[in-house]
Amino acid sequence: MIIQLEVNTPEKDIQELIEKINQKGLHTNYVVGDNHSIIGVIGDTSKVDLEEIEAQKHVAKVMRVQEPYKKANRAFHPDNTIIDVNGIKIGGGNFVVMSGPCSVESKEQIEIVANAVKTSGSTILRGGAYKPRTSPYAFQGLELEGLELLKLARKATGMPIVTEIMSPNLVEKFVEDVDIIQVGARNMQNFDLLKELGKTQKPILLKRGLSATIEEFLMSAEYIMAGGNSNVILCERGIRTYETYTRNTLDISAVPVLKKLSHLPVIVDPSHATGKSWLVDPLSKAAMAVGADGLMIEVHNDPANALCDGPQSLTPEAFDKLMKELKVLAKALNIDF
Amino acid sequence: MIIQLEVNTPEKDIQELIEKINQKGLHTNYVVGDNHSIIGVIGDTSKVDLEEIEAQKHVAKVMRVQEPYKKANRAFHPDNTIIDVNGIKIGGGNFVVMSGPCSVESKEQIEIVANAVKTSGSTILRGGAYKPRTSPYAFQGLELEGLELLKLARKATGMPIVTEIMSPNLVEKFVEDVDIIQVGARNMQNFDLLKELGKTQKPILLKRGLSATIEEFLMSAEYIMAGGNSNVILCERGIRTYETYTRNTLDISAVPVLKKLSHLPVIVDPSHATGKSWLVDPLSKAAMAVGADGLMIEVHNDPANALCDGPQSLTPEAFDKLMKELKVLAKALNIDF
Amino acid sequence: MIIQLEVNTPEKDIQELIEKINQKGLHTNYVVGDNHSIIGVIGDTSKVDLEEIEAQKHVAKVMRVQEPYKKANRAFHPDNTIIDVNGIKIGGGNFVVMSGPCSVESKEQIEIVANAVKTSGSTILRGGAYKPRTSPYAFQGLELEGLELLKLARKATGMPIVTEIMSPNLVEKFVEDVDIIQVGARNMQNFDLLKELGKTQKPILLKRGLSATIEEFLMSAEYIMAGGNSNVILCERGIRTYETYTRNTLDISAVPVLKKLSHLPVIVDPSHATGKSWLVDPLSKAAMAVGADGLMIEVHNDPANALCDGPQSLTPEAFDKLMKELKVLAKALNIDF
Amino acid sequence: MIIQLEVNTPEKDIQELIEKINQKGLHTNYVVGDNHSIIGVIGDTSKVDLEEIEAQKHVAKVMRVQEPYKKANRAFHPDNTIIDVNGIKIGGGNFVVMSGPCSVESKEQIEIVANAVKTSGSTILRGGAYKPRTSPYAFQGLELEGLELLKLARKATGMPIVTEIMSPNLVEKFVEDVDIIQVGARNMQNFDLLKELGKTQKPILLKRGLSATIEEFLMSAEYIMAGGNSNVILCERGIRTYETYTRNTLDISAVPVLKKLSHLPVIVDPSHATGKSWLVDPLSKAAMAVGADGLMIEVHNDPANALCDGPQSLTPEAFDKLMKELKVLAKALNIDF
Repeated sequence: MIIQLEVNTPEKDIQELIEKINQKGLHTNYVVGDNHSIIGVIGDTSKVDLEEIEAQKHVAKVMRVQEPYKKANRAFHPDNTIIDVNGIKIGGGNFVVMSGPCSVESKEQIEIVANAVKTSGSTILRGGAYKPRTSPYAFQGLELEGLELLKLARKATGMPIVTEIMSPNLVEKFVEDVDIIQVGARNMQNFDLLKELGKTQKPILLKRGLSATIEEFLMSAEYIMAGGNSNVILCERGIRTYETYTRNTLDISAVPVLKKLSHLPVIVDPSHATGKSWLVDPLSKAAMAVGADGLMIEVHNDPANALCDGPQSLTPEAFDKLMKELKVLAKALNIDF
Repeated sequence: MIIQLEVNTPEKDIQELIEKINQKGLHTNYVVGDNHSIIGVIGDTSKVDLEEIEAQKHVAKVMRVQEPYKKANRAFHPDNTIIDVNGIKIGGGNFVVMSGPCSVESKEQIEIVANAVKTSGSTILRGGAYKPRTSPYAFQGLELEGLELLKLARKATGMPIVTEIMSPNLVEKFVEDVDIIQVGARNMQNFDLLKELGKTQKPILLKRGLSATIEEFLMSAEYIMAGGNSNVILCERGIRTYETYTRNTLDISAVPVLKKLSHLPVIVDPSHATGKSWLVDPLSKAAMAVGADGLMIEVHNDPANALCDGPQSLTPEAFDKLMKELKVLAKALNIDF
Repeated sequence: MIIQLEVNTPEKDIQELIEKINQKGLHTNYVVGDNHSIIGVIGDTSKVDLEEIEAQKHVAKVMRVQEPYKKANRAFHPDNTIIDVNGIKIGGGNFVVMSGPCSVESKEQIEIVANAVKTSGSTILRGGAYKPRTSPYAFQGLELEGLELLKLARKATGMPIVTEIMSPNLVEKFVEDVDIIQVGARNMQNFDLLKELGKTQKPILLKRGLSATIEEFLMSAEYIMAGGNSNVILCERGIRTYETYTRNTLDISAVPVLKKLSHLPVIVDPSHATGKSWLVDPLSKAAMAVGADGLMIEVHNDPANALCDGPQSLTPEAFDKLMKELKVLAKALNIDF
Repeated sequence: MIIQLEVNTPEKDIQELIEKINQKGLHTNYVVGDNHSIIGVIGDTSKVDLEEIEAQKHVAKVMRVQEPYKKANRAFHPDNTIIDVNGIKIGGGNFVVMSGPCSVESKEQIEIVANAVKTSGSTILRGGAYKPRTSPYAFQGLELEGLELLKLARKATGMPIVTEIMSPNLVEKFVEDVDIIQVGARNMQNFDLLKELGKTQKPILLKRGLSATIEEFLMSAEYIMAGGNSNVILCERGIRTYETYTRNTLDISAVPVLKKLSHLPVIVDPSHATGKSWLVDPLSKAAMAVGADGLMIEVHNDPANALCDGPQSLTPEAFDKLMKELKVLAKALNIDF
């Protein structure tokens, strides 16, 4: 941590500040500049509150040198984390595709889609039971009934299931019922929920918030890991920018950046990233080429009548074509898929 | 709602689409353009899912004409909502200042600050008991004990209290204990929490999310109101932009925009908007001049030793000076303060 | 164009507005809604000023249906534009790599780099002579001398050269000296420069502005094309967002979007998109996979002593490795490279 | 300047780097941390290229301590710059209003507006002769004829005139004809233009670019000042964010920030900031309350028939009402207006 002092800070105040820092068990190194002087702080600063230092008299700016996350940090855990979900490996050079409808609508619908995506090579089934909707008047998901239908589809196909949780009250239920628990973008900083999930051992698929920095994203993973659950899968799904042609802007460079900073697996959701089904194909290929560990793709047997996210859902036919092309691409890239 | 069709959409498909819309109890008006044709949809479209329409074959784009919020909409409720909190009126030309420390730290601290801000003319006491922190290793608030200390400070000063809720599990407790329940920026789209708050009659102070559009902000207010609770206070607290000198960018024009679109009171939080205490003074004055119904300001007796948000907290002396100047300003602006 | 009227607009004023529009040679279609009424405007609205309509009394909002660009619009020119630069084809299924140093520094440097990138398979040589620098105190390029060195390198290697122009005063000189004229991101809306370039027939490589929407980007291409020069190559090079880990955020989905909306070739600059050399490799592959027509990559023989953009420059060795891998990828994607 | 080294950088390479820095006439201070080590660089680093340092082997990150601008920097010039335009003082506690039409359209129009705004208390006349328009098909201004009409209006009213320049070729003409030369947001980093303006002594009104950081904005002022012209007026006019209700987002806190960092006068353009005339009134008051040195406001005698920016133009009547209210506000704020 580096502390930049205001111009003309009295020597006495500098010494007081240095003493205060030393009392936290840290060491300091004071460098006098021509205009600004700085204090270098040495030791484990991950638990030091940057804001507390900023609030000290004569402090102009505080800059972190050490990342504030530890358990999610590749510096301390150089090897890739590989998460095993019923024998399917996520991370570490394996490429996984999770697919299925935005929301579970009926027994027939989820079974048709589940069978179709399985045939095309998807190994994990996604489907929404509880849906976060901007409008209180929009379809909110089949909820408990949706969970039951997902379980039936799992039984029928053998595919593990991933679905979104929205409330800390449902953690116990989800741990029992599903294979991967998804935390949506809007709940990335729902810290009470993250803390509850940290107490379980269930794989968590954590989506990046709409305006979360990469560091904040990793700090949310750290919340879950600090609680004791290190099975976290990161998911880039588009960020909010000024561009409105696409619903969000897929931050494709976040994938190699996250993989450099962290050992956790990183997947991409091209469906939510843009909100347009015709962009899912090129973006899926880009995600594979850039080094993602997998994809999460919305597939619906009848997009025009889907109860949500129809505009971004692929038909089973389009999904099948995409999967075939991804397999050719994987070979060229030496990816195991 | 206006539906723009793709170039060369077959007449048969257009008729099918029109029929589908008519079946929803809406009327249509079909306009043939030189290149693009459009369908105007007439009737109450607030409950029609825009995405469902977008997913139809040959639909190029869908544009809303009617706002998707109804209860929060000034068009349907022209008069300003005035919320009464123990005799203190919020909205409708009254100017209210809520102030106090970022987090409640001790009985002594909250009492010193409460008395100070009361003396300066603040009428509502703010203080954090449960704190949403980016890092799992940062101070998370005194929680239940913090609530108790706030209640003691209320008893001592007579000021109503406002504090932040983070979990739907605590709604009952908060309804009993506090006077205004605050929903923080990170939870603006925590829909489960909003739904629970909609079942109460407690005033809710809803903060705008870091990257929430004005429409999304009003839709979150609509969630609470749709549940039956129309006591919602909107709070602009800065949005995330590319500029990093300030922590966030105060969207000052959001204040008059929100007041035009909605009848709900709108206050401004200049402390979180920038993260710098020396900006609180000019931004508070700007907020009053632009037409806000009030302010929420962080005050701490000893910012350098605050357990959170020290850099943005005013000392009681600086706060007192600001309040005096705001009173002069209010007079020039014909504001009741 | 669709005009949304304010609630309760008097019939008389609506008729006046309709008449005003009809006088511009356009047709109107008036649709009465439950709350808002709308006027559909039919005919060539590309030359109608949206702002003029917005300024009319009782107009609540104006929405375009037709895109405001015509010459750059795929709807009117379905076939891909292919630009021929000394026999090298850009666009229409050909993949081209332009590479070289950020700035030309010496005869020796440009020749070493030019020979190296040619050997690796690059067919166009890039190099900066006039450099747009944020600081007036930074190296501003070798200017005229840089141009001469580029011409020598072209002579030595046979590669066409592309370099950036910053002033309308230099158009004549650049037309004579270089093969492709580059307009940088900061000058994307330097309309005087665009107009001058529109009078030439030289291929123009137009970079997207840091905060330009896709529509504004295409409107700048339209400026050049409206002047009579249809040889425009679009270049996505990252946009400005709140994320600061990378210098900019590569908007990878802009590539398929631009190719859908326009017939112009689209290339990607992964070097400027992130400012970090280790990200050039994965982003180049992503750009190819997503459907770009080519790449522009910075290569420097000695990045640590480069006079600009060292941190984002590849060494010739790293560039050679990347080119080999791109060739394998191209085969899997059926791309001609 | 602080250089953060990669983990495990060999001692030999560190010494080489230190030597390289020392050779630039700077001093270094090497601090060994637990994980990361840092090098503090002491001396005048404003002319050191941050990118060059970043490109060195083993450099993880470089952070500036000293601001990169010197002439625009309040640290080196504590007193407010006051610019005198024909006896009208800008900066240093004086409040100035520049107003007039977006574009000059006719002798009659500019004279009507000029007389009206003068009567209301505006002291400087604005009006566009050369107009930067997103579309090549939109009205581009009366150009030379517009300049002549402005000069006539100046003669008739005695008000100095400010108008926008778009090309370095017109600098000589503008120096002769106008009193303040405006550089628009799109040209904030048109460095060739800035350099030409730096050679004059004419007051320059420099608008902030749509996505320019505060530091980049000050660096563009530095370009003009480095050339020898220190008469720069800064103008905040809204930045581009994800919010689309307003055309741009007025960054109101930029005003006190700019005034803290720099000694230059800072004015606000509320018309372009939002694109909506009904927001000009509250935002003008907010700008005065926050500490701006003045305003630039668009006024048109007939907004519905304005050739540009009609939706954001005030009528003379609305402008007059605003000016009266600003005068009351100024008194309460002890501002000289």
